[in-house]
Amino acid sequence: MLKDINSIQDLKKLSVDQLPELCSEIRQKLIDEVAVSGGHLASNLGVVELTVALHYVFDESDKIVWDVGHQSYVHKILTGRSENFSTLRQKDGISGFPDCAESATDTFNVGHAGTSLSAALGLAHARDINGESGKIVAVVGDGSMTCGMIYEALNNVGQTKNLIIVLNDNNMSISDNVGSVRKNMSKLRVGKYDKNKEKFRKFLEAIPLVGKPLSRAMQNLIKRRKLSFSRVGYFDNFNLKYIGIIDGNNLKSLVYYLSKIKENVTRPTLLHIATRKGKGFDKAEQNPEKYHGVPRGGFDTPVQLGLVESKTVVSQTLAKLGQNNQELAFVCAAMSNAVGFEECKQLFPTRFFDVGIAEEHAVTFSAGLAKGGMHPFVGIYSTFLQRSFDQILHDVALQNLPVTFLLDRAGFVGDDGKTHQGLFDLSYLSAIPNLQIWTPSSAVQLQQMIEQASATNSPVALRYGRFLLEDNTLRSTKNWQVVKQNKRAKIVVLAVGANMLQNALALQRDDVEVVCVTSVKPLDETYLASLNRHQVVVTLEENVLQGGFGQAVATYSNKHQKFAVHTLGVDDTFVEHASIQQQIQQNKLDTQSLRALVEQILGE
Amino acid sequence: MLKDINSIQDLKKLSVDQLPELCSEIRQKLIDEVAVSGGHLASNLGVVELTVALHYVFDESDKIVWDVGHQSYVHKILTGRSENFSTLRQKDGISGFPDCAESATDTFNVGHAGTSLSAALGLAHARDINGESGKIVAVVGDGSMTCGMIYEALNNVGQTKNLIIVLNDNNMSISDNVGSVRKNMSKLRVGKYDKNKEKFRKFLEAIPLVGKPLSRAMQNLIKRRKLSFSRVGYFDNFNLKYIGIIDGNNLKSLVYYLSKIKENVTRPTLLHIATRKGKGFDKAEQNPEKYHGVPRGGFDTPVQLGLVESKTVVSQTLAKLGQNNQELAFVCAAMSNAVGFEECKQLFPTRFFDVGIAEEHAVTFSAGLAKGGMHPFVGIYSTFLQRSFDQILHDVALQNLPVTFLLDRAGFVGDDGKTHQGLFDLSYLSAIPNLQIWTPSSAVQLQQMIEQASATNSPVALRYGRFLLEDNTLRSTKNWQVVKQNKRAKIVVLAVGANMLQNALALQRDDVEVVCVTSVKPLDETYLASLNRHQVVVTLEENVLQGGFGQAVATYSNKHQKFAVHTLGVDDTFVEHASIQQQIQQNKLDTQSLRALVEQILGE
Repeated sequence: MLKDINSIQDLKKLSVDQLPELCSEIRQKLIDEVAVSGGHLASNLGVVELTVALHYVFDESDKIVWDVGHQSYVHKILTGRSENFSTLRQKDGISGFPDCAESATDTFNVGHAGTSLSAALGLAHARDINGESGKIVAVVGDGSMTCGMIYEALNNVGQTKNLIIVLNDNNMSISDNVGSVRKNMSKLRVGKYDKNKEKFRKFLEAIPLVGKPLSRAMQNLIKRRKLSFSRVGYFDNFNLKYIGIIDGNNLKSLVYYLSKIKENVTRPTLLHIATRKGKGFDKAEQNPEKYHGVPRGGFDTPVQLGLVESKTVVSQTLAKLGQNNQELAFVCAAMSNAVGFEECKQLFPTRFFDVGIAEEHAVTFSAGLAKGGMHPFVGIYSTFLQRSFDQILHDVALQNLPVTFLLDRAGFVGDDGKTHQGLFDLSYLSAIPNLQIWTPSSAVQLQQMIEQASATNSPVALRYGRFLLEDNTLRSTKNWQVVKQNKRAKIVVLAVGANMLQNALALQRDDVEVVCVTSVKPLDETYLASLNRHQVVVTLEENVLQGGFGQAVATYSNKHQKFAVHTLGVDDTFVEHASIQQQIQQNKLDTQSLRALVEQILGE
Repeated sequence: MLKDINSIQDLKKLSVDQLPELCSEIRQKLIDEVAVSGGHLASNLGVVELTVALHYVFDESDKIVWDVGHQSYVHKILTGRSENFSTLRQKDGISGFPDCAESATDTFNVGHAGTSLSAALGLAHARDINGESGKIVAVVGDGSMTCGMIYEALNNVGQTKNLIIVLNDNNMSISDNVGSVRKNMSKLRVGKYDKNKEKFRKFLEAIPLVGKPLSRAMQNLIKRRKLSFSRVGYFDNFNLKYIGIIDGNNLKSLVYYLSKIKENVTRPTLLHIATRKGKGFDKAEQNPEKYHGVPRGGFDTPVQLGLVESKTVVSQTLAKLGQNNQELAFVCAAMSNAVGFEECKQLFPTRFFDVGIAEEHAVTFSAGLAKGGMHPFVGIYSTFLQRSFDQILHDVALQNLPVTFLLDRAGFVGDDGKTHQGLFDLSYLSAIPNLQIWTPSSAVQLQQMIEQASATNSPVALRYGRFLLEDNTLRSTKNWQVVKQNKRAKIVVLAVGANMLQNALALQRDDVEVVCVTSVKPLDETYLASLNRHQVVVTLEENVLQGGFGQAVATYSNKHQKFAVHTLGVDDTFVEHASIQQQIQQNKLDTQSLRALVEQILGE
């Protein structure tokens, strides 16, 4: 059936009764193809019925905005991208997130959590100002409900017409959902309303002869009642019409409620549905966190020889440090496992805090902890810490507090693509006074830097990619480490991070000095001063050039009338999904590009 | 009485009956001294009783965290800073915001809205982990309740013990308070509870002989009942014990409730009080927005000759443009008047949006408007737009949407000091691909740039300080404008913004070329290419050097083996309160410092 669905128009030709079969086919396609391509599996399995129902009910003039967007695979399959679906997250293939450049049915680019309702409100007001029609539907997971942005937007819903929020409640964000709002939603979720309804249905059906028709009539009654049923709860604070809770994996029920809302309701409405993450795939249902993101090639892909996963180093180091140092605290934002804090959660429950998808609060909360005498480690991916720029500056750095930031996924992130690149942290962090930025390339360096940071009485950010070198000769020193020394070298390569260092070393030229940059801020001015003006410095960084490491070196050089600098990095652009290696090549940061530059400088 | 209060200990020696008199003295001191020094008047007049009551009831081991902090003057007067109070916001004087470096009773540095509860939660957890005692009190205005951060923190209150939130509800933030949560709070606030109580009291007192004692007994009863009274409302979603609404300008009532809470309540508690902004000063009560911030020397200080206030230019230009261009929308965050959007609010009510203190939502909402075919102007002070870094990058720039940012108060802000400096925007904005940064120095330039931005189909940020030059010879051109030309000049000064340009021109040296930098991104490479390697470029910017304009020029020069560059700006530090001129001098950006540098370069 699926092979005949090339557009929403094709979908609408089906009868409602055919849709469950279509859902099965989609589910199978997801399980088969995401296992190979890698990607977000569990969340997409959960929203198969929802996505089919949304497109079945709503029209082309309506706009669906997906929050976070990693649950948009089914949408992509239904909107002309089924055939190319196997190219998911690959270079020149389809993106793992909604992307307007890919399809007009992707109404808004997303990747970070909690933006959908703000965007939907903007679209709704633009529609009204321009005298257009159509519904705006924001699909928000319960995890995003912990974001401050969603609250700011809820607070501005006001009287916006024809705005529908579908709250997709699977009772977990990426790992565990946190906080009071969730608890209240859960209270609703586990309410006996549906259960009692089911009992009543069975009771009616047990009555001979008239039972079944009566049951059906009752169900219709109940459905109608539910539509007018407004629960006194959290969402009433925002003038939202609340409808729920509906089984979000029951297609007919979804089509019924969505149709009714579409036809009858003009005031802002929230439809609360409960879905099962990983639905239809046993392994994912049982362990949805693991199956949240499936790596390309599956879970058993071994870590490449000579590399170590950063979070393993974080986990082991913090577990050990935390035993001996009762001042350490551990703060993360809904991703304890991903940043290597899971062991701390087990070992130090009173000093471990998962605040939900609330990066702003995470940082200022840590500032409070620090002010109270603790030394917090804040583990947040580079791209998500962008949310906390003001808090790092205004609440941590301004008071010069001992908070250590652990930025995993700094640099290229590969298949997650442009919304998730860690290519801005060196720039936005460098501008902040009092904050040091250290850049480990090896496992030992990360371990030692974590130890040193825990003994540092001011803010430090450690930034690194997913993998580190296993090279035990690299050490964490305040001064940069010359890895390949040649004092007479015309060319000096300053490499930031594991990938860049590896590429520089792969040059295998004895006439090029290679330096492992262990600190981007402060710069190692002793080393830089030791260079002479006839030398040429090449800086290598996985960061935009604007405000990055290379610019700082070039400015130093210019000020002291020193060496020429070639700054290599990402030149003022967003980098699309591809493998990390491909992204490195595209941006001319690979060994071959470096070799060509070296040969050019040397006139070879 | 006030002159004998040098510490909290002195305050505690007074009887409750003496406190109202003390409040009168404090109020008079505020009116007298803030009128001269300048500062936040209305909000401080509103919290005189609250501050006195808090310090009277709570102990040294307790910690009070002020949200935003501009209402901390009374606190400062009571904690040993009464004598120096006339140095408020002046160089080497006391800060207009809580500052731990100034007094240990300032428990957390603040300046931006919505951080107090996150900080308080951190302090509370640190206290518990360390086995210490004491209450943590966060004082939050209703305006801050529109911040996403507060919501993120509320969602993490959980079971935190001995945490008290005082919600100071004056029914307005800086201008008008916005959104649904406020409406619900107002509903409570205007509830007839207190009014009925008053009627009842008068009724009782009218009864001959037994009336007054009975009335007193009833009042005690009611007070006790209120303490156990939990209103079903917004805060119940966060497991907070809710007490209110109390008259926050009634000292005895405050002392009563705060004492009871301090003595009896361990679970997280919110005390909702209603205060009158500007209380006790007629002009401020009637026009609290105007008296929110009083300029040094009072309101009638004329704009300096040759200068124009930026917001006037914004207001006039947008009002005109908006008439002819129905696509324009206007989004601000609780400061419509301050950013010059008040006229748009009146003229284009359907296209004007004040979203509350919700800078993140403001930007993504604007992205939604743009996606829907509008061209939004977002007016937010430079320092507050730091909150939206991720949204500018991820929601606007990544989709290359036509959103124009108007950053007023860029550069030095003078007496508001380090929490409010607009010294980071060139850095954090430069790192963002697709975004242009234009820097008007004159009124005409700002006007023309707004017009040009409205016709630009991609994101643009305009940054400028409070005042612009009236100089009509300056134009908005894509290329930088050479204001003082000398093609043979050894020294070229590239000046960003009105103050820097003015200082460069005041050199009055014909052998120095002076350039008005109209665009920081992109750079005017045509102009830079026209310079030769024997020239020396001096860059002047009110921004940190890291990632700023000078670094971009130095990198260009280094890449093209060009001129030497002296980058003048703020060198990796936070800049304390003082006048703007003093801040310019301190950072060696004044004409005299520039002259010294020029003479040094020329070997004079």
